[in-house]
Amino acid sequence: MDIAILAHEQFPGRAKTAVGILRYGDHDVVAVLDRDTAGDRVHDHLPDVQDAPIVESMADVPDCDVLVVGIAPIGGGFEDSWRPDVRTALERGCDVWAGLHYMLADDAEFAALADEHGCELRDVRRPPDDLTVAEGTAGDVDAQVVLTVGTDCSTGKMTTSYELRDAARERGLDAAVVPTGQTGIMISGWGISIDRTIADFAAGAVERLVHEAADHDVLFVEGQGSLGHPAYSGVTLAILHGSQPDSLVMTHVAGRETHHSYEDYPLPPVREYADLYEQVAEPVRETSVDAGMLNTQGMDESAAREAIEEYAGDLGVPATDPVRFDVEETLDAVL
Amino acid sequence: MDIAILAHEQFPGRAKTAVGILRYGDHDVVAVLDRDTAGDRVHDHLPDVQDAPIVESMADVPDCDVLVVGIAPIGGGFEDSWRPDVRTALERGCDVWAGLHYMLADDAEFAALADEHGCELRDVRRPPDDLTVAEGTAGDVDAQVVLTVGTDCSTGKMTTSYELRDAARERGLDAAVVPTGQTGIMISGWGISIDRTIADFAAGAVERLVHEAADHDVLFVEGQGSLGHPAYSGVTLAILHGSQPDSLVMTHVAGRETHHSYEDYPLPPVREYADLYEQVAEPVRETSVDAGMLNTQGMDESAAREAIEEYAGDLGVPATDPVRFDVEETLDAVL
Repeated sequence: MDIAILAHEQFPGRAKTAVGILRYGDHDVVAVLDRDTAGDRVHDHLPDVQDAPIVESMADVPDCDVLVVGIAPIGGGFEDSWRPDVRTALERGCDVWAGLHYMLADDAEFAALADEHGCELRDVRRPPDDLTVAEGTAGDVDAQVVLTVGTDCSTGKMTTSYELRDAARERGLDAAVVPTGQTGIMISGWGISIDRTIADFAAGAVERLVHEAADHDVLFVEGQGSLGHPAYSGVTLAILHGSQPDSLVMTHVAGRETHHSYEDYPLPPVREYADLYEQVAEPVRETSVDAGMLNTQGMDESAAREAIEEYAGDLGVPATDPVRFDVEETLDAVL
Repeated sequence: MDIAILAHEQFPGRAKTAVGILRYGDHDVVAVLDRDTAGDRVHDHLPDVQDAPIVESMADVPDCDVLVVGIAPIGGGFEDSWRPDVRTALERGCDVWAGLHYMLADDAEFAALADEHGCELRDVRRPPDDLTVAEGTAGDVDAQVVLTVGTDCSTGKMTTSYELRDAARERGLDAAVVPTGQTGIMISGWGISIDRTIADFAAGAVERLVHEAADHDVLFVEGQGSLGHPAYSGVTLAILHGSQPDSLVMTHVAGRETHHSYEDYPLPPVREYADLYEQVAEPVRETSVDAGMLNTQGMDESAAREAIEEYAGDLGVPATDPVRFDVEETLDAVL
């Protein structure tokens, strides 16, 4: 399938979904839409992912099947400056996928255009309508369940899950990611956007995903948010208790000291944070932080290696940057 | 505001909401509708709550502003035998409030009658549709914020909140409960059913409630679930971080050793559980468990007092049973 990815003014640094699809997805990306970097190519910014031209608007995109909205502002709203591109895509007969809180299918103009041109509006955040409360049974599955947790939002939980999946597959294991957010759902083609479920059913939704994937050897459950986050901690805990993991991987961004967009809230020291995850997990299922992942983007290699060594020392477990360096030792630690 | 409460065939034993409104509500109850006990008065059954006549149907109710559906069958459906009373209320211009899974506003007949007579149909389980993520600002309010937490579901968090409110009012304080569940919402006439919100907005919903009530001297926030619950912990933590309490009150049911309906999951020792609440709260706002509340229903008085003493000793803070004994020492501890 040929797809275009909308990432205006945020590519690549703040376009997590766009970059995730370029790195781990199975689709052919024919263009990235970003009016700030139009004229460049993806490889000018990210040499190690699928390449594609970066263009100004949908008018410059070659034939494709789907336009994916590959960015999301805080709060998950739809920016009106994206409207002309979505409109053009629908008029050209492209499906449009988005992972926003704002539902494209509920937008009267988009719904009418999609209907007129026979396209699908796919809001991947919309959860199934038959969710229920958790029964506390995820721990019963035979698969090894590894959950990525973190010190904050956007610390690399999804990336870590896919990198560990790929390394486990290299070893011949039947490994899968359990996607709990919109990007993972777009990459893997299944999953539930846990933050969008009814709060009472959030743990139950994760439990259901673990059961659905239970016939794999190892599951890398994509965590969300962080346990000490002023806004998202409830979702984090629902995933921790709903998935009943055998092992936790602690993700962190080198140098980050406060919660992103919540600068009044400092991050606890990483080992303290790891202890907190283990302590809160325990009433439901005992588990431990067995590996660490550090996002060292922007550091030179020796600084990155030094930062990782310090992070591993603080946590007392093996650590790596799963994008820059290999994950073998950390994979050993969680299997 | 003058209200009537529908409680057919279930008053008082199985009419939790009706009894809660009579006991703690600020509204004047002009009648209770119960065809089984019609002709009696509320005081014939419950001497220690607001009195009112019990009547056969809405036709016997004096002028009022609201009819509250004060009972809920297993499953939360609407019983067709209640339909004539709801119809009559709307025809008389009364609003109707309910906390059922069945949404009155989605009932074609009721919606048409409400429209015709200018009344409101208020389904209190349905959260507002303009919720947002928390900003981490609840701690900025001047009011003293006290959150009831617990070792499990159904440990007395709502009852504790109202008993402490009443005792604070006795002292001349301007105290209010911040209701987070349907019964509390019907008692107080405002609030949000947090467990029904979108998971990402749960903390934001609580934060909004705290801001709405910020001009009181002291707020007793009704907690939900428990931090180590296999299904509901996410809601619990969203309330803990969203409300940013100054003080916590730990509720527990004497003798309960496992989570209700989740018997494979034992409750942690109460002091360990209290530590866990404090530790998880800390990254967002430092707080402490300053009082304990023990539900001793079914124990004789000396056994109850002994159990409370043991509970207070375990927790290391003052404790009481807020329904049987006075709450003065525990109120001192949280103010």
